[in-house]
Amino acid sequence: MTGAANTNGIDDGLGTLQTPCLLLDRRKLAANLAGMQTQVSRHGVAFRPHLKTAKSIDVARMAMTSPSGPATVSTLKEAEYFAERGVTDLTYAVGIAPNKLDRVGEIRRRWKADLAVVLDSLVQAEAVAAWSRASGDRLPVFIEVDPDGHRSGVKPGNAELLRGIGERLAQGATLRGVLLHAGESYGLSDPEALAQAAEGERKAALQAAETLRAAGFECPVVSVGSTPTARHARHLDGITEVRAGVYMFGDLVQAGIGSCAVEDICVSVLATVIGHQPEKGWIITDAGWMAMSRDRGTASQAVDQGYGIVCDRLGHAYADVIVAQANQEHGVLAVRKGSSAALPDLPVGSLVRILPNHACATAAQYDRYHVIDGEGCASTVWERINGW
Amino acid sequence: MTGAANTNGIDDGLGTLQTPCLLLDRRKLAANLAGMQTQVSRHGVAFRPHLKTAKSIDVARMAMTSPSGPATVSTLKEAEYFAERGVTDLTYAVGIAPNKLDRVGEIRRRWKADLAVVLDSLVQAEAVAAWSRASGDRLPVFIEVDPDGHRSGVKPGNAELLRGIGERLAQGATLRGVLLHAGESYGLSDPEALAQAAEGERKAALQAAETLRAAGFECPVVSVGSTPTARHARHLDGITEVRAGVYMFGDLVQAGIGSCAVEDICVSVLATVIGHQPEKGWIITDAGWMAMSRDRGTASQAVDQGYGIVCDRLGHAYADVIVAQANQEHGVLAVRKGSSAALPDLPVGSLVRILPNHACATAAQYDRYHVIDGEGCASTVWERINGW
Repeated sequence: MTGAANTNGIDDGLGTLQTPCLLLDRRKLAANLAGMQTQVSRHGVAFRPHLKTAKSIDVARMAMTSPSGPATVSTLKEAEYFAERGVTDLTYAVGIAPNKLDRVGEIRRRWKADLAVVLDSLVQAEAVAAWSRASGDRLPVFIEVDPDGHRSGVKPGNAELLRGIGERLAQGATLRGVLLHAGESYGLSDPEALAQAAEGERKAALQAAETLRAAGFECPVVSVGSTPTARHARHLDGITEVRAGVYMFGDLVQAGIGSCAVEDICVSVLATVIGHQPEKGWIITDAGWMAMSRDRGTASQAVDQGYGIVCDRLGHAYADVIVAQANQEHGVLAVRKGSSAALPDLPVGSLVRILPNHACATAAQYDRYHVIDGEGCASTVWERINGW
Repeated sequence: MTGAANTNGIDDGLGTLQTPCLLLDRRKLAANLAGMQTQVSRHGVAFRPHLKTAKSIDVARMAMTSPSGPATVSTLKEAEYFAERGVTDLTYAVGIAPNKLDRVGEIRRRWKADLAVVLDSLVQAEAVAAWSRASGDRLPVFIEVDPDGHRSGVKPGNAELLRGIGERLAQGATLRGVLLHAGESYGLSDPEALAQAAEGERKAALQAAETLRAAGFECPVVSVGSTPTARHARHLDGITEVRAGVYMFGDLVQAGIGSCAVEDICVSVLATVIGHQPEKGWIITDAGWMAMSRDRGTASQAVDQGYGIVCDRLGHAYADVIVAQANQEHGVLAVRKGSSAALPDLPVGSLVRILPNHACATAAQYDRYHVIDGEGCASTVWERINGW
């Protein structure tokens, strides 16, 4: 398994990479993208992929329905990066802070980007309207609505607050619509419960939109989304667009929810075996938590995957072998507790691939993807960004 | 609390920063460095600070006993970064993989760096000796010894393996000494238990060094270290150098162990309030897990700090307010469960500082430090590196 060639005797290009590094299987990525596009298009709604997982223009161009978007971002640094590369139809889907409005304005001006912001309070609406009046740039705004108590957003039944925000926005800004994220769906795994979460998200969106429209506000866009609810929605009547992000890559948390199969996960960390502790049943690699991220999202699921599932160099999972522990630059591979599976024979220098718990968190530890095609050759590097 | 000025009416420079960002309090850093240097020098041993936490030449120059080192690194990218900046006395303290030897050799050649590697197996020793013969560069090597079953290393009583590695290294490479890391100490908190862990680390080091010396191998360096054991060692007779890293910054995990006080922690994440869910007792900020890292190291300690302790803009902790939950770009501030403390009044736009669970993991989410002096002005930026 060591050296330049894999077990098939074919040079897969992996032997020359410095580990740990992040592999991206382009064929699996394309299949994941096509799968979600099929799911969303059967509902007859627009699709605004969330670029927070990939943070890569190359992945974005494969995922978006046009080179200019639509797309969703989670930071203004993403907005800058993508706008500079021609993605100009953008929603920044994290509640806007007044001290970020100048930066939003600069992105809109410099790259002629239609960058919309999100808010859920009177004070934000006043700040955005005041900024719009002062700058002469009527900012497009979504009111965030909370479908499930997960995080931010106006309660869909809080008509007074919805109308109050609408009134304040009307003093200079543009109300573009309502935006929801059914974040509680990440804690589910039953398909029926997920379909109900999607329906709850849809109904909350319509309730808020109808409240605004009844008060005389235009509310052209009704935007919902999370990877689990986008997958499990039975219908999306009244919704105009869907957002989702982690579906692009998939990960073990999504597999635990039932939003993808383990075989669909298209990102993996390439690691090198650097030692053994035979009496403990441990194989030590150079991919510790810095390479995997500290995400332990599967710890609260039915199957705890440690810091990730261990696959051979070709990407095929070893039965019941996981990254059982991790230090900063050391990963400890071991057979899952309670399993009678054998630890594979992996001498020092062997390459393994590790499937991550959480694609967003793991990918954020890297500044590039090494792109592979199925089991084939790694030859292409795609940049990605991090930070704010 | 919003805008350019803090509550004292003084412009602290924080109002112009884009959040989330990482603050580094230079005065606290200097005190942490001086404290450890005092602890180590009372034992009369050399100090080789570990640069894996800071990954910054500016911090390194404050921490090292000379501009060229000694220092420890956890990745070859750190070795390259520091060697290029004049730090040439380096130990790469993660087990060496044969496919990394050419990169090690290039760092040694290009920057005339005395970069040593670490290993714990016959196969690695053979590979290093063979590489040394082929390249004409006698690599300096530490045999890693395992004092406490934490991770890697030869058992200190395994004389046969120690001698076998020594013999193989003698075929081209240079045995520089033994290196230990009492990683289990991170799970302790009782000072007596920590002193015992330090003594166990010391005894294991001497046992291995004496085995090698009795077999005729020179073993000039006996290197031990972890922040908890470096702090709690009662004496270090026979040890020649100590390594430690996270002590520079401190963090909530170290405070939980008793290796620092919460007030000593010199890194914090500056965040902006972006919303509220009053009926839940939540304040939402723009510092989610991407800004804090996914590290939940205090979850297994006596006091679970969530994703971090919340402080005001000046760095003073609010009583019992923690980051109770985090999504990718959202942090949820709340009063700790069971506490009757009041949630502070923090309108949208307020700045808060958050003390991290794990300085290494949190700092790795950033490419720079914004340096502050006590409560004073943030004016200096120090770069840091990430990745491999």
